[in-house]
Amino acid sequence: MNDTILLAHGSGGKLSRDLVEKTFLPFLSNPVLDKLDDSATFEASGRLALTTDGYVVNPIFFPGGDIGKLAICGTVNDLATSGAKPMYLSLSAIIEEGFSVSELERVMQSIKTAAEEAEVTIITGDTKVVNRGQADKLFITTSGIGTIPAGVDISGSNARVGDKVILSGSIGDHGITIISQREGLKFSMALESDCAPLNKLVAQMLEVSSNLHCLRDPTRGGLAATLNELAQQSNVGIIIEEIKIPVKEEVKAACELLGLDPIHIANEGKMVAIVDPGDADKILAQIKRNKYGKDAVIIGEVTGEYPGKVIMKTKLGPSRIVDMPSGELLPRIC
Amino acid sequence: MNDTILLAHGSGGKLSRDLVEKTFLPFLSNPVLDKLDDSATFEASGRLALTTDGYVVNPIFFPGGDIGKLAICGTVNDLATSGAKPMYLSLSAIIEEGFSVSELERVMQSIKTAAEEAEVTIITGDTKVVNRGQADKLFITTSGIGTIPAGVDISGSNARVGDKVILSGSIGDHGITIISQREGLKFSMALESDCAPLNKLVAQMLEVSSNLHCLRDPTRGGLAATLNELAQQSNVGIIIEEIKIPVKEEVKAACELLGLDPIHIANEGKMVAIVDPGDADKILAQIKRNKYGKDAVIIGEVTGEYPGKVIMKTKLGPSRIVDMPSGELLPRIC
Repeated sequence: MNDTILLAHGSGGKLSRDLVEKTFLPFLSNPVLDKLDDSATFEASGRLALTTDGYVVNPIFFPGGDIGKLAICGTVNDLATSGAKPMYLSLSAIIEEGFSVSELERVMQSIKTAAEEAEVTIITGDTKVVNRGQADKLFITTSGIGTIPAGVDISGSNARVGDKVILSGSIGDHGITIISQREGLKFSMALESDCAPLNKLVAQMLEVSSNLHCLRDPTRGGLAATLNELAQQSNVGIIIEEIKIPVKEEVKAACELLGLDPIHIANEGKMVAIVDPGDADKILAQIKRNKYGKDAVIIGEVTGEYPGKVIMKTKLGPSRIVDMPSGELLPRIC
Repeated sequence: MNDTILLAHGSGGKLSRDLVEKTFLPFLSNPVLDKLDDSATFEASGRLALTTDGYVVNPIFFPGGDIGKLAICGTVNDLATSGAKPMYLSLSAIIEEGFSVSELERVMQSIKTAAEEAEVTIITGDTKVVNRGQADKLFITTSGIGTIPAGVDISGSNARVGDKVILSGSIGDHGITIISQREGLKFSMALESDCAPLNKLVAQMLEVSSNLHCLRDPTRGGLAATLNELAQQSNVGIIIEEIKIPVKEEVKAACELLGLDPIHIANEGKMVAIVDPGDADKILAQIKRNKYGKDAVIIGEVTGEYPGKVIMKTKLGPSRIVDMPSGELLPRIC
C-alpha cells in the first residue's frame, strides 16, 4: 500500500475499501463496525445523550496526546457533562491528499487506546479525502451516544444560589502545550496537554451524590467561557477566588510572556462542577481519589447577585468581572 | 455582525456565541438544541441506528441543492438504509476564515428545509474555524440517530439467492451535475442533483413488505460500488441488465464526453433495494408511488454463481464483470 493518502482513498471504490480494511479496522475492529453497513445498530432504552465535535488541532501530534486522543476524550467528556455513561462513538475523517498513512496509523492507535480507557466503541465512520491545500493534514469529527442513569438531571441551566463551584485541577495545560509547540517556547517543554477521558471521574461523583447540578469541561475559551456560559444559562452570578485556581508554573510563565490569561486557555481533561453546598465536600473528596482529579479544589460559589456574570476576587484584593473571551488568540487549539 | 467568518467565531468566546445565536439558531431552533448544553438528551427505546458522514462537496452550491441539503439527506438516507426512522441529527461545521456569513445562512436555510421535509431535528452541534487556506470554504459532518421498527432486519449481508434488485430511478444525476458545474459543461445545464431524503420512501416500502433484505444508497463510487459491496457482504453474485438501468440523456452525453461510466457516478437521492422475489412487484409498485421513486425499475437479481461479483448483461449482448471503481475521477463529489 502507498505510504500517502491519495484522492482515490476517498473515492468510495477499491482504495476506499483498502483504507478501511488495512488502516482503520486493524485498530478499531468490533462486530458492529465490521459489518460496514451505512449505519450501525444497537439496543438502548431510557434517556440518551448525543454530542458532536470537530477537531482541527494544529499540530496534530503534541505532548500528552494527538488529534485522535483529543477527539475521543472530547466526545466522551461532552457526554459525561450530562451525567451520561458514554457507549458508542462515530468517527468521521477529512484527510488532505498527501497525508502520511503511517501518521494516520499513529492517530488510529491513540484512538484505540483512548477508546479502551473510556470503554467506548466506535461503531460507524466515514472518510473523505480533499485535494492538497484544501484542508490541513487531518480533521476528525466524532459524535457520541451515552445512557443517562435514571434520576440524573445535569444541565448548564441547573445552578442554584448557594451552590459550590469545583474545578478538577490546574488550568491552561492543553492550550499552553499547543501554543508552545507552535511557538517553540523552550521553558514549557516539560508541559503536557491534560487531554483525558473524564467519564469515570463523573461516574464516581454520581456514586456519592445525586446533587450534581452542572458539569462542563472548560475547553475553548477556558474557565472564563465555561463559567460565563453556566452563569448565563442558569441566570445566576458566580463568584470565584483567583488564589484558589491551580495554575502550573510553566503555564503562568508562558501566559506572562504571551500576554494571555490562564482562565481563557483551553483545557481537555478538566471538569467544572456546580454542586449542592451540602454535598460539596464529599464530592470534592471523591474527585481527588481519581488520578485526573487529585488537584481538585472548590474555587467559588453561586450567588443571587450579578445574574449572568462571573466575578473574580483577585489575589491583590479587589474583585473584577470575568468576561467571555473576545477575539481569537489561539486558533486551532482543539 | 461582520459579513465574513473570523477566526474569533471559533474561539469559544463572545463571537462563537454570537454565531450560534444569530446564524444557527434562527434556522435550527428547537427546545433541545436551544439549551446549548454540550450534549443533547432524548428518550428512546429499542433498536437504534447511528450513522455519520462528512461532506466536502465542491462547489458548495449546485443545481438541485447545496452542501447543507446534501448533509441532511445523506445522513437521513444512511439511516433509512437500515430501515430506521431518522429522529435526531448532530451538525458539525468546519469553516474557513473569510467565508461569507450570508452564504452560511443560505446553507442553514437549506438545512432547515431538508430537515423539515425529512422530519428530523438537529439537537446538537459544533463549529470550528480554521485559518484561511487550511480548509476550503465549508465542510459539514452530520451524524444521525434513528429508531428501527420491531422485526426489521436490513443489512448489506442479507441478500439471498433469487432476490430481485430494484433501483429507485436514474443514475449519475448528482455526480454529473457537480462535475458539469466545475467543468462548465453547457449541455448539461438542465441537469440537477437528485439530492433528496428517502426515509419516507423506505417507510412506504416497509408498509407493504417485511422482506426487504438490503438497502443502500449508491453515493460515492455509484451503482457499481454499491452492488459490489452488497455482493461481497452477502457473499452472493449479482446479475444486472444494462438496458434496464435508467440514465438521463444529459448524463449519457456528459459521460461520453468525459470518458466516464454512469454506473461509477455518485447519486444522492436513489436507493438500491434487494428484496424477496415474491414481494418484488408490490415493493416496486409502492416505490413508484413516491415522487422520488417514479422511475424505479427491477434491474437484476441475486445468483449463487460468481459469489462476491457483479455481472452486467450489456446492451450489445455479452456479459461483463462490473468492478469496484478504482482511482478517483471526481474528488469532492459529496
